[in-house]
Amino acid sequence: MTAADGRPEAPDPDATVLAERFRAIRAATLALVAGLDAEDLVPQSMPDASPGKWHLAHTTWFFEAMVLVPLAGQAPADRRWHYLFNSYYEALGPRQPRPQRGLLTRPSLAEVLAWRAEVEDRILALLTSGPPPGAAELVALGCQHEQQHQELLVTDLKHLFSHNLAAPAWRGRAPPSGMRPAPATGWHRHDQAGPVAIGEDGGGFAFDNERPRHTVWLRPFALADRPVSNGEYLAFLADGGYQEPAHWLADGWAAVQAGGWQAPLYWRREAADVPWRQFTVWGWRDVDPAEPVCHLSFYEADAYARWAGARLPTEAEWEAVASRRGLDGGFADNGRLHPAPLHGPSLGGEVWEWTASAYAPYPGFRPLPGAAGEYNGKFMSGQMVLRGGSCASPRDHLRPTYRNFFPPAARWQFSGLRLARDL
Amino acid sequence: MTAADGRPEAPDPDATVLAERFRAIRAATLALVAGLDAEDLVPQSMPDASPGKWHLAHTTWFFEAMVLVPLAGQAPADRRWHYLFNSYYEALGPRQPRPQRGLLTRPSLAEVLAWRAEVEDRILALLTSGPPPGAAELVALGCQHEQQHQELLVTDLKHLFSHNLAAPAWRGRAPPSGMRPAPATGWHRHDQAGPVAIGEDGGGFAFDNERPRHTVWLRPFALADRPVSNGEYLAFLADGGYQEPAHWLADGWAAVQAGGWQAPLYWRREAADVPWRQFTVWGWRDVDPAEPVCHLSFYEADAYARWAGARLPTEAEWEAVASRRGLDGGFADNGRLHPAPLHGPSLGGEVWEWTASAYAPYPGFRPLPGAAGEYNGKFMSGQMVLRGGSCASPRDHLRPTYRNFFPPAARWQFSGLRLARDL
Amino acid sequence: MTAADGRPEAPDPDATVLAERFRAIRAATLALVAGLDAEDLVPQSMPDASPGKWHLAHTTWFFEAMVLVPLAGQAPADRRWHYLFNSYYEALGPRQPRPQRGLLTRPSLAEVLAWRAEVEDRILALLTSGPPPGAAELVALGCQHEQQHQELLVTDLKHLFSHNLAAPAWRGRAPPSGMRPAPATGWHRHDQAGPVAIGEDGGGFAFDNERPRHTVWLRPFALADRPVSNGEYLAFLADGGYQEPAHWLADGWAAVQAGGWQAPLYWRREAADVPWRQFTVWGWRDVDPAEPVCHLSFYEADAYARWAGARLPTEAEWEAVASRRGLDGGFADNGRLHPAPLHGPSLGGEVWEWTASAYAPYPGFRPLPGAAGEYNGKFMSGQMVLRGGSCASPRDHLRPTYRNFFPPAARWQFSGLRLARDL
Amino acid sequence: MTAADGRPEAPDPDATVLAERFRAIRAATLALVAGLDAEDLVPQSMPDASPGKWHLAHTTWFFEAMVLVPLAGQAPADRRWHYLFNSYYEALGPRQPRPQRGLLTRPSLAEVLAWRAEVEDRILALLTSGPPPGAAELVALGCQHEQQHQELLVTDLKHLFSHNLAAPAWRGRAPPSGMRPAPATGWHRHDQAGPVAIGEDGGGFAFDNERPRHTVWLRPFALADRPVSNGEYLAFLADGGYQEPAHWLADGWAAVQAGGWQAPLYWRREAADVPWRQFTVWGWRDVDPAEPVCHLSFYEADAYARWAGARLPTEAEWEAVASRRGLDGGFADNGRLHPAPLHGPSLGGEVWEWTASAYAPYPGFRPLPGAAGEYNGKFMSGQMVLRGGSCASPRDHLRPTYRNFFPPAARWQFSGLRLARDL
Repeated sequence: MTAADGRPEAPDPDATVLAERFRAIRAATLALVAGLDAEDLVPQSMPDASPGKWHLAHTTWFFEAMVLVPLAGQAPADRRWHYLFNSYYEALGPRQPRPQRGLLTRPSLAEVLAWRAEVEDRILALLTSGPPPGAAELVALGCQHEQQHQELLVTDLKHLFSHNLAAPAWRGRAPPSGMRPAPATGWHRHDQAGPVAIGEDGGGFAFDNERPRHTVWLRPFALADRPVSNGEYLAFLADGGYQEPAHWLADGWAAVQAGGWQAPLYWRREAADVPWRQFTVWGWRDVDPAEPVCHLSFYEADAYARWAGARLPTEAEWEAVASRRGLDGGFADNGRLHPAPLHGPSLGGEVWEWTASAYAPYPGFRPLPGAAGEYNGKFMSGQMVLRGGSCASPRDHLRPTYRNFFPPAARWQFSGLRLARDL
Repeated sequence: MTAADGRPEAPDPDATVLAERFRAIRAATLALVAGLDAEDLVPQSMPDASPGKWHLAHTTWFFEAMVLVPLAGQAPADRRWHYLFNSYYEALGPRQPRPQRGLLTRPSLAEVLAWRAEVEDRILALLTSGPPPGAAELVALGCQHEQQHQELLVTDLKHLFSHNLAAPAWRGRAPPSGMRPAPATGWHRHDQAGPVAIGEDGGGFAFDNERPRHTVWLRPFALADRPVSNGEYLAFLADGGYQEPAHWLADGWAAVQAGGWQAPLYWRREAADVPWRQFTVWGWRDVDPAEPVCHLSFYEADAYARWAGARLPTEAEWEAVASRRGLDGGFADNGRLHPAPLHGPSLGGEVWEWTASAYAPYPGFRPLPGAAGEYNGKFMSGQMVLRGGSCASPRDHLRPTYRNFFPPAARWQFSGLRLARDL
Repeated sequence: MTAADGRPEAPDPDATVLAERFRAIRAATLALVAGLDAEDLVPQSMPDASPGKWHLAHTTWFFEAMVLVPLAGQAPADRRWHYLFNSYYEALGPRQPRPQRGLLTRPSLAEVLAWRAEVEDRILALLTSGPPPGAAELVALGCQHEQQHQELLVTDLKHLFSHNLAAPAWRGRAPPSGMRPAPATGWHRHDQAGPVAIGEDGGGFAFDNERPRHTVWLRPFALADRPVSNGEYLAFLADGGYQEPAHWLADGWAAVQAGGWQAPLYWRREAADVPWRQFTVWGWRDVDPAEPVCHLSFYEADAYARWAGARLPTEAEWEAVASRRGLDGGFADNGRLHPAPLHGPSLGGEVWEWTASAYAPYPGFRPLPGAAGEYNGKFMSGQMVLRGGSCASPRDHLRPTYRNFFPPAARWQFSGLRLARDL
Repeated sequence: MTAADGRPEAPDPDATVLAERFRAIRAATLALVAGLDAEDLVPQSMPDASPGKWHLAHTTWFFEAMVLVPLAGQAPADRRWHYLFNSYYEALGPRQPRPQRGLLTRPSLAEVLAWRAEVEDRILALLTSGPPPGAAELVALGCQHEQQHQELLVTDLKHLFSHNLAAPAWRGRAPPSGMRPAPATGWHRHDQAGPVAIGEDGGGFAFDNERPRHTVWLRPFALADRPVSNGEYLAFLADGGYQEPAHWLADGWAAVQAGGWQAPLYWRREAADVPWRQFTVWGWRDVDPAEPVCHLSFYEADAYARWAGARLPTEAEWEAVASRRGLDGGFADNGRLHPAPLHGPSLGGEVWEWTASAYAPYPGFRPLPGAAGEYNGKFMSGQMVLRGGSCASPRDHLRPTYRNFFPPAARWQFSGLRLARDL
């Protein structure tokens, strides 16, 4: 590209930054599956989860279907792959039925990786040669989208491996489980009733569901300065928490009965007098009392809080504290992919925290235009908001205003809780 | 009862009022089933509905199990009936499985009616002789409870009768369907951003879920001055509303597909070129364009609003307008049990109005003590709030602060919608 | 009716016999529901069962739809009832969905009984005035059909009542359960290999599925001279019969697991160290060791036989013995409606006996012409043959050639077993 | 191995033959997956099917679990694999749940292939060094078992590939579909009523379910001299065969409705006026009228026969003809894996033929001793017998007495039909 006066044009610094970010995020996705076989990336362990190969392909499809085809006029690598790897965008045509994603043996992993590389080259070429209007925004969105799928890739693989007696330790060797409990919980106090602004207010990237920034009225409350630990949750179990309906929402109690839940997902014990063990990315190990409790449904988080004489925070309460304090827990970048033992106050990272808030549009919410408008808005029913990010979330994907959401019975995410109470 | 000085004690005026109210409400329940056979009151048409006889018995059980047995030390009429007619109170022991309520041929209707009469006598005796502490409050709660079941009795019977080709007109003869549309919609404006108090603040009866009164922050909005009409909804149908996923929440679109929904519940037409007909308490008749649209799920209400370029109001917005304006539509007391044609502004009555608000505890919510604490709080997940009351709600059961709630796919209540928009 | 020569014509003796039989069978049906409320006859306790009122109406529909309308040109009492009370005859038009038979509160029992009376009068008039060609045969078929529904009426009501803690003793008071075991089992020997004829060969009424009489080749075998008793079955339970997969067919073991079966249907015990009790038409009582074991699925009968070192007989073996020996157990006519204690050899009555034979057409089988052709033939897959009749079968409905059939998991009939072994 | 007199002992000629057969069969299994990726062998497309890798492992497990461990005292390669690859042998311990076979990414294909090779070496060593008592019989059984899984490997892979738009032609290029119909059908007559012996009578290998040889009584019948063709089946479709309940068994009609069946499995057409196409091992191609119709359920075969004024043969009728005539169709050995066009009389091969016979034990049936006793007997309920073998059956695996069996709704096998009629 050449400027009008004949000198080679300097690359757009924003596009350069975006290209670098794009390259890094794509590489991070591949790093997550390093060391796995192609076979590990084929199956789908439940309709809510997706195969690893599907994640690799779908995140590539996003850039091709949202950017290269509509904005750059390029032909798709293979039209059939648009059918196979569209997740739910009705505006972009029909799709492989979700429960049949695990039947896709073709394209092979090698073909998907080649497609990834080709699409990356094309996106980078587009960015460096002056992207068409709207393309940079959609590439940025695609980077966020890919980061979300990085986390799903981890949780879906973990779910898959949990069904296989013969699954090797996926990520090396487990650190020993400690026997010490987590340190005592302190409280962040919010003493003044009155209006508080939450939601995104401008500068950086944010999803449409974080907007607009708006006022909510908060009453005095206190938010715990760390998540609930395994040790504390073990006391709930020991107290018969899963046998006493009074602790539970009606839907939660029904889920306990129907699913035969007796502990968090991935916890097992052979007999009533041996310690609980849990399945991790390192394989099976003893439950560590100092780690944040994890793989809870909303119902379990809510029941625990009621049992503990407290409650879950609303997302506004959570954000009011987080926007003052910032996020400081452990994220995917440290490579652990398992929540670290608690050693003092922390907020964000390690485990997503269920809130008391149903996932709903903020007042004045406007979905993105075009097909990207299906990104968030259409899921605004039947789900609960989680905040903070987890040990499987990329650090720079998160913000205090970030809203994650899952159905209340979902347990395969790294989901825990933090207590709140009225003042 | 005799006062200390030997004079006959004057009855407590509050207890007298309550006794009269109790008597009137019990009679109103029976009036709803007048003219029906015992056989009509046995079946259960779906797990969400209950048989008529069950409603008659359950509302009686409530007084016996919550008042007579625990507070007055009386023996239950028959212990087995406590098993049969407990709805969901875990604290009060095991229950007939909900989907098997339609298998209760015994006790017979005659026995249930005799039980009703006996419990009524005992409650009245208790009230007039000076009720033990807490009893008056629980009788008042039981009256409200019975009024709720009056509405369910109507909607459950309607659902049952809709499955029977041979069902007679339950309530006489249908008035002819008009061909005129409803009058144009106007708007209630709320122009000022700022704090507004909602929830119950004192005097009269209110459920625990309406408390405490608290502040919310509202942005400027407008609320339609009447519900959406059948005529307007027919335009949504004619525009392919049930064929276009862009109008729908993802869960709503899934419900449309799974249920084969093509119109509101109870609407049918033989062919694409004949008018829609609907099942009513009078039997089948043509859809009247001037009536409020009814028997919608939340998903349909939400989709219509999106198609119409508007949105559903939040419950706080709805209440802010209603508490200024009051409720004035048609209620069960007029005996029609079908929404009347719209002829101008109205708010409340005729059809429940789905709001955009998930059913959740108000800040500072405290459930009632004892078994009654299971009344509302444990259902605070997975449901949406409806406001206003319907043609099947007793007038004096409703208030602007009243919160009804149903799962988003429920359609067998008299449920419609009112539009809102941002200003 | 007058003969050509003016003398009053003598009634056709066959028609007179048939009319008397028709009258008696219709009356026997009503006798079964004597003492029950209309409410008892409304519900449907599972899709396989039907409401009592439905049986009363369906057996009437049969005569109207098969005889009065097509052969006598009469108008149906109400066309809608043909929709409601057709069971499965595709040739006769659409039907109330089977799982929704319990939703038919209308026509009322009183209306159904009036319809019964009217159809009876018309059929009797037709028979006495000289029936049109084919009518007598279809009335005879309708009588057999009604007798089959008499048995279903009993078993369906029993199933319904079993779901209601408050159900009264339906048929008076239970005789005390004895403690003595049944007498020892002897064997009917069939020592000679060679051809044997089975199936109906002429004279009396028989269903199409019993025809044609044909030759089968039998090997030497022995058939027990009485059914298996409760006492013997208790030994199977005590030996862990329901815990050991080696005794069971694969489908049977799956049914045990899925259904949580631990004993025959209607057996319960509060704890492992108290006697088993069973639900009967008299209410709950102790299991009597001398009675034939009853309410078994085919899978349980087959598993018991394997455990006992024997096998189930084929239907040909059973019939070969029965046609020599005749049927002599207790049938519905004795009014007991519960199998009597065994006191010696018996064959037929008390409990239906599962055979090893899948229900299939006999060689040369021809279905009846017309709509009646759907009577038997179309069920010839997925079911097993039972022989002998039960305590709920009318005596004159049964014959040694009679073939009953149910799916292998069905347990709500009075179904037991008799052992066989190779010689 | 050395004989008593010091000379090297000559290998047992039987063991040598068996070893050669073992080697050839194991190689044939691998040949079926040649050219496929490891990824193709991981997924499970429905609970009835199994992944390719699972078949490769399970057939190896059989030799290890039935021969090497119990008879030769060898240690299993990996105890966990006995959990993963046991199919249904209750006597051999717990198993990976059948619907979760597709979640086994480990052991990898490479590990499974290495295990195959190791077990093959050990079995060959055992055979050549003088196998322990019973081992040769179980190796022979294992060879037969492996041949059965060869066919399932083909049909399960075909089912899997049918779900993937992007699946390549698995087996090269389809031969063009002809337009000529199959030649006219002739009939094999069996004119004499009387006893006929069926079942295995000695010499070669046979499964326990083929034994004992026994007498059945046959009536005169005729059996078509070739299977029904696609062209004939298209006439059934054109005549509204899938819309007319009179042709169908009640269970069959229910399956048609529930499954939305409109044609055989793997048939599709875009519109009513274009030719039907079918999915094959070569990908999609036009239906060839001269080929035998294939991928029918028993219900479809039975309905077609009734529509055609004929019936299905019993297995005894089929065997009576086959044992005179022998089997001569195309088997898996020709590598086609798709039924060849009919060009004259043929019996056996190409497509399995549904019979009218429920799968039941022959009189005097005795299961194999030990764990192998679970091989056949426990499936003797709820299934129908198929005869003849298919284009996916190894030729030397079949015999005229061979009994295959599947549930009546199964369609993913190469299953068709041949007509019979009474004489």
